[in-house]
Amino acid sequence: MKEISGGVCAPKGFLAGGIKCGIKDSSSKKDLALIYSQKVCTAAAVFTQNKVKAACVQVSRQHITGGKLHAIIANSGNANACTGEAGMDSARRMAQITSEKFDIDIKEVVVASTGVIGVPLPIEKIENGFDLLKESLRDDEQGHTDALEAIMTTDTRKKDITVEFEIDGKSIRIGAMTKGSGMMHPNMATMLAFITTDAAIEKDALDTALRLAVKRSFNRLTIDGDTSTNDMAVIMANGEAGNTPIAAGSAAFEVFQTALEKACTALARKMARDGEGATRLVTVNVCGADSEDTAEVLAKSVAASSLVKAACFGADANWGRVLCAMGYSGADFDPLKVNVSFSSGAGEVQVCKNGGSVSFSEEKAKEVLLQEEIAINIDLNKGTEKAVVWGCDLTYDYVKINGDYRS
Amino acid sequence: MKEISGGVCAPKGFLAGGIKCGIKDSSSKKDLALIYSQKVCTAAAVFTQNKVKAACVQVSRQHITGGKLHAIIANSGNANACTGEAGMDSARRMAQITSEKFDIDIKEVVVASTGVIGVPLPIEKIENGFDLLKESLRDDEQGHTDALEAIMTTDTRKKDITVEFEIDGKSIRIGAMTKGSGMMHPNMATMLAFITTDAAIEKDALDTALRLAVKRSFNRLTIDGDTSTNDMAVIMANGEAGNTPIAAGSAAFEVFQTALEKACTALARKMARDGEGATRLVTVNVCGADSEDTAEVLAKSVAASSLVKAACFGADANWGRVLCAMGYSGADFDPLKVNVSFSSGAGEVQVCKNGGSVSFSEEKAKEVLLQEEIAINIDLNKGTEKAVVWGCDLTYDYVKINGDYRS
Repeated sequence: MKEISGGVCAPKGFLAGGIKCGIKDSSSKKDLALIYSQKVCTAAAVFTQNKVKAACVQVSRQHITGGKLHAIIANSGNANACTGEAGMDSARRMAQITSEKFDIDIKEVVVASTGVIGVPLPIEKIENGFDLLKESLRDDEQGHTDALEAIMTTDTRKKDITVEFEIDGKSIRIGAMTKGSGMMHPNMATMLAFITTDAAIEKDALDTALRLAVKRSFNRLTIDGDTSTNDMAVIMANGEAGNTPIAAGSAAFEVFQTALEKACTALARKMARDGEGATRLVTVNVCGADSEDTAEVLAKSVAASSLVKAACFGADANWGRVLCAMGYSGADFDPLKVNVSFSSGAGEVQVCKNGGSVSFSEEKAKEVLLQEEIAINIDLNKGTEKAVVWGCDLTYDYVKINGDYRS
Repeated sequence: MKEISGGVCAPKGFLAGGIKCGIKDSSSKKDLALIYSQKVCTAAAVFTQNKVKAACVQVSRQHITGGKLHAIIANSGNANACTGEAGMDSARRMAQITSEKFDIDIKEVVVASTGVIGVPLPIEKIENGFDLLKESLRDDEQGHTDALEAIMTTDTRKKDITVEFEIDGKSIRIGAMTKGSGMMHPNMATMLAFITTDAAIEKDALDTALRLAVKRSFNRLTIDGDTSTNDMAVIMANGEAGNTPIAAGSAAFEVFQTALEKACTALARKMARDGEGATRLVTVNVCGADSEDTAEVLAKSVAASSLVKAACFGADANWGRVLCAMGYSGADFDPLKVNVSFSSGAGEVQVCKNGGSVSFSEEKAKEVLLQEEIAINIDLNKGTEKAVVWGCDLTYDYVKINGDYRS
């Protein structure tokens, strides 16, 4: 598998575009995006587990049941959540106008929104802007970038990836974009992920591949513990690569799923690094567990702890907070068997052995923790299972971003 | 019931004191406290539910099983948690020296510690300081204040309360002190609470009264979502008031339990207001629930949300984040029936009706939210049960306090 460029437009047969239609009215930023496949796609999606679901999530959940998609339309600047029946009408209208303008089935359109909750979506701005949006479609990286920019909110970096690999001697591409930097916590983070591929793959296999990939990537990401009302990850596969359709359980499935998971994992890391106000990407590795679930629960608890996150910001080797966060996670482990180290490009320092202190150089630990990418490594010394969770530090800027204006 | 002064020394027969023994070596602050009853007390206690329990918690849990106490010895500056067998020896030694110097049973001593995790407790400083600590005992408010100052860590305010009420025509007093401002989340917060009373009360009744009071006070408090390794709430009743011993289920029990719960609630509010870096006390009221548990789960989720807390700091009427936090709480409710208002001494503003927006004055909402004590009021419109949870805003200073030095 190699990394290439092009994003969601890299797989054959996909177009993308993005424009400013005026939802983010005080800004010059793009706020309306479209991803379009010339051919109808096999598709799968996962959605937020929040009980309060945005209108777009409710509409798209219905649409995806058919397993076919032609287009994704997404706006930023307004979440269209907690907007009542009018909000549902607006979400349906976004799908409807897309279906009319492309002469496709309305059920082949997924609708996504991200932004402030509880404010009516100005649907007329989307309707008025649609022709311009359609004109903006391109089959190259610029189209991908325009669409990506149009779904960003507090994101400070573009988060995308494109990979290429072979199945049956055919070149397969996966292109993906995500947005999300706050209101992010596993299952799912406040995030949108739109993924395209030219692989031919059976519907069930695609669904399984996406769920597995999301479980080990986007659902292992935490920024602030807040699970959003609007999350979704959508994948569209148009079969243009010409491979034999991938069936679940086959060798080709393994190759495809591995590539998809790697792409999603790379995006999860990029989102953690771009967490609101974050100065460091914090990877929590838990190993030696008796189950992957236990490892995951412990790693999430550590990554989500405000005190651990603040210590990471201060580059303080405060391993006591790591043990404390493990202790209240609800997971079963033996505190007296736990080893902890901190590591980064600057080296590794063991700070806890058998649940107690070991002597270490505070100076060296500081150097390790001052890097932009740091890891907290926890060995439970009990079994052989493991899990990785990505998060970030808690900084003044997180408070500033979320205290100073409505987002 | 009236509020009086005197703290833990107000009930007859209790002494308290506090000194600097050098655990907080770089500071001039007191770090060793003692509360002593001249008569052996009926006693009850609750402890942290964190799986990683400090040595003092492990020792004190054993001691309290007898239901009798003479003394509480507590240090600040070191949590004696994650300190292995040496830490257990130190905790036992703290109890032992107290029992030797007062010629009381070692099981009649509770040991408490608070401070940094994972650093060996310098037990020799406590041993060397014990005679001075014993000499510091007084039966007046100064003794109470000395002890209280000696258990404070990042606390910026003294948090105590003293109440007086009548049972059987006898005057009963309850005096209490708490510490805690960070690593605080229900069950329990990072907090120590030491409570004295001269009431005569049966052991089981005292235990029940304490558990009920803690459930609706300290366990409904959240500062940062981190449940500590060291929490405990201890009550000692010496019977000096001369009332007929209170039995569970009696009218006198109701009076006593209500007074205790009011005292603990007042302390919980004081702790929320003194949350690390907090500028506002945030009370979350949930009513109209079908069970108290549901109301509590929803209120805690809202009070613990980093995004809600940051919005409170910014005095931003961001009710969408309130709905979002309710939605991921796991509790069952109908989003389309939810009403939300913000209130304070400056008035009340409804911001959400039936799960959607209502028009309101942003200016007025800002004025309401800029107060030091604000409330988020949520009506589920489903049943008649309710719950109150206290929290605080998330500020730059929280990050500063927890990022800049090891606490």
